[in-house]
Amino acid sequence: MEDTDVLIVGAGILGVTSAYHILRNNPGKKVLVVDRYGAAGQGNTGRSNAMFRNTFSSRDNQTLANASIDYYLHTQYEAKKDIGLQQIGYLWLMNENQLSSSEPHLKSMQANGIQTTQLPLAELSRRIPGLAAEGNGAGQASLVGLPKIEAGVFGPKCGRLDADKLTRHYARMVTEMGGKFAFGTEATRLAVSPKDRLGFEGEPFVWQESSVTGVELAGRLQGTVHPPVVVLACGAWGNQLLEPIGLDGHCKAKKRQLFSIRAESSPLQHLTHVKGFNPLGLLPMIILPKAGVHFKPVNEEKAFWAACEDNVRALLDVPENDLDAYRAEPDFYERNIKPVLTGYFPEFSKTVVKAMWAGLYSYNTLDYLPFVFREKNMIIVGGDSGSGIMKGDSLGRVVDALYREEQEAELYGGTHYRVSKLSFEHRDVEKEDWVI
Amino acid sequence: MEDTDVLIVGAGILGVTSAYHILRNNPGKKVLVVDRYGAAGQGNTGRSNAMFRNTFSSRDNQTLANASIDYYLHTQYEAKKDIGLQQIGYLWLMNENQLSSSEPHLKSMQANGIQTTQLPLAELSRRIPGLAAEGNGAGQASLVGLPKIEAGVFGPKCGRLDADKLTRHYARMVTEMGGKFAFGTEATRLAVSPKDRLGFEGEPFVWQESSVTGVELAGRLQGTVHPPVVVLACGAWGNQLLEPIGLDGHCKAKKRQLFSIRAESSPLQHLTHVKGFNPLGLLPMIILPKAGVHFKPVNEEKAFWAACEDNVRALLDVPENDLDAYRAEPDFYERNIKPVLTGYFPEFSKTVVKAMWAGLYSYNTLDYLPFVFREKNMIIVGGDSGSGIMKGDSLGRVVDALYREEQEAELYGGTHYRVSKLSFEHRDVEKEDWVI
Repeated sequence: MEDTDVLIVGAGILGVTSAYHILRNNPGKKVLVVDRYGAAGQGNTGRSNAMFRNTFSSRDNQTLANASIDYYLHTQYEAKKDIGLQQIGYLWLMNENQLSSSEPHLKSMQANGIQTTQLPLAELSRRIPGLAAEGNGAGQASLVGLPKIEAGVFGPKCGRLDADKLTRHYARMVTEMGGKFAFGTEATRLAVSPKDRLGFEGEPFVWQESSVTGVELAGRLQGTVHPPVVVLACGAWGNQLLEPIGLDGHCKAKKRQLFSIRAESSPLQHLTHVKGFNPLGLLPMIILPKAGVHFKPVNEEKAFWAACEDNVRALLDVPENDLDAYRAEPDFYERNIKPVLTGYFPEFSKTVVKAMWAGLYSYNTLDYLPFVFREKNMIIVGGDSGSGIMKGDSLGRVVDALYREEQEAELYGGTHYRVSKLSFEHRDVEKEDWVI
Repeated sequence: MEDTDVLIVGAGILGVTSAYHILRNNPGKKVLVVDRYGAAGQGNTGRSNAMFRNTFSSRDNQTLANASIDYYLHTQYEAKKDIGLQQIGYLWLMNENQLSSSEPHLKSMQANGIQTTQLPLAELSRRIPGLAAEGNGAGQASLVGLPKIEAGVFGPKCGRLDADKLTRHYARMVTEMGGKFAFGTEATRLAVSPKDRLGFEGEPFVWQESSVTGVELAGRLQGTVHPPVVVLACGAWGNQLLEPIGLDGHCKAKKRQLFSIRAESSPLQHLTHVKGFNPLGLLPMIILPKAGVHFKPVNEEKAFWAACEDNVRALLDVPENDLDAYRAEPDFYERNIKPVLTGYFPEFSKTVVKAMWAGLYSYNTLDYLPFVFREKNMIIVGGDSGSGIMKGDSLGRVVDALYREEQEAELYGGTHYRVSKLSFEHRDVEKEDWVI
């Protein structure tokens, strides 16, 4: 603990990618990653849908995600490390308005080398058995008022991976390079001290120069660490550490839920394997034209995972506790997701929820893009707004570039990205309009 | 309550200026202002230092403040309504670094018609008796490490007013135009309902279009109001209403404190009245070159009010309660403010604190400029970061322009200001670098 060069708070995806890239570019530095849970990626990373796409409207998102995805594809297919990656693609089923409003986004993607294909309705109906494109499939569809699907937009360089496997992949590389993990260990407080301590009560005073000189730990590893640099990568929980010392984490947490629907021995069985979208013969991730309802096949579980946007849900500054934050609501699927699913896929009307869980998005409500900024001797990364995994490798590189006080990060594949773009002081990012 | 056209939550300065300008430009509209306290301006408006300046680095701040100040000057001197305004000026006592870094700001002000004067040290020493420009005056000055004052920058169109009188001035005009106030009445919840209610449990669902259709009131006026438009002007308390419905107030609250120092029958007595700065013969507001320590003469109380920046203080998402937020700390003056004051003004070493109080700044931590944005049928104004009073008249006009769906607000004096500049979606403001 005493000779730690960099303390990283949080062993979620952004903590482990930060640790990995710092160690890769600063060999010999002593990196310690602490996490309150028992292993890497057991907080909100492990609760996520772990989807990836390079299909964004914002060029910043395109660049950050595309480079990360390239690394993940390399890892799975070339380096043959299993991170559970399946490049199943994303298929947006769009109504007329969505089709026309997506046009400029599709052009921006094309200009940035990101491929999409438009599929007419006839082609969709041919490939996807049981699709009720009118939105009048079954259940309360008429009550919901579902729009007619006009066409599909398919993103081939999109898919799913296994959040747990990916996080462990990075954690293993961190350990191999000499990085240390302290699990079951929570960072409870950032201690601010004056540069020149006088020994009076009440320091630091407003007229003293001060910085974060210690991080108090509780749990298996206890005491105060005094690292030269602290990386805060604790996602939805960041405000808890930052606000007491007068810093704004610029993000809010929101509960999002996932429901695993049994496909096995149900009318849905035929839907998991669908030809024409990917070499795996799997249905792509499907995004429906209402409330961001979406689902993907999880073939090894013989299930679909379904979810939706949740715009009325409370934003939390600091979640009260894990239990509330992580408790899924059975009614939520029945009332919010199922009516939309059954409208377009009537077979969902006779399905059973096998499992459900919830996790916290860490929203940067300003522009829904991640931030990485330096404040004194801290580097703060977060606000990834539900896409931390798919941009994880790139964000770890930006953290490392900030650590080395470089102006640019080299992303996987060689693209250079100016790190100040993701700061707040010199923020210069394109807002994202294509949100799920 | 039932035929309210606009419900305004908060009768602080931004609530009353919003009410006034909406009524002025929309005669006959039924405007109801609710506030938890017993009268207008009794929350953080009444706890503020109520200073005004047009000397900002940001052209947006310059424009918004300058027009408001023109209205306040008109009110005090031409319309002869007493709002306690004294145009005493602001005097920044600067060290070498501050002088050179303020140069671009002074040029930007000049270009925007805002006057300042630079005063050499000899002139400062001549006008201000007892100034220890070396910062070695008395007490623990050497411990603090105070920089030498090199020169002064004086802003003549700056000064103080009486927050209570100003707020009552607007409240009176609101009442005269038929606006209503409900005091002792707290808005406890924003009720979100679907546009087309189905009558099922759990509405609104994610697939329904919904908006804020009701504001629940508690206290003297009880029940739920269903106004077509709601203006949220509740400053530091805004997150409490917005976050439960999934909206970010984009601001954080921070406690700031004021200390009233007895000048009467103390060595400080000679300092209140100082010639050469203003026709009133009063000392201007003095800003010292360390930790933003500043003080102003309050001649009717025979006192100085002193304060400072407080950068280590916790940011609050929602203050726990009034009592904690409003409790001043006696030690804070002794440890943080007094050591700086006595370094430059040794007479402060033998002073007595007559009174002290605290209030909450509502910080927009993104750029420290106010925001006014529309979200569905709500107009949200805040984040004024300690300068709501000095920009109050202009911000009320921006709220009214948003209410009338105008693209520009006409500020006092005829300047036009594009309202979308202060939104988040199309935010286009110059950051402020000259913060106290």
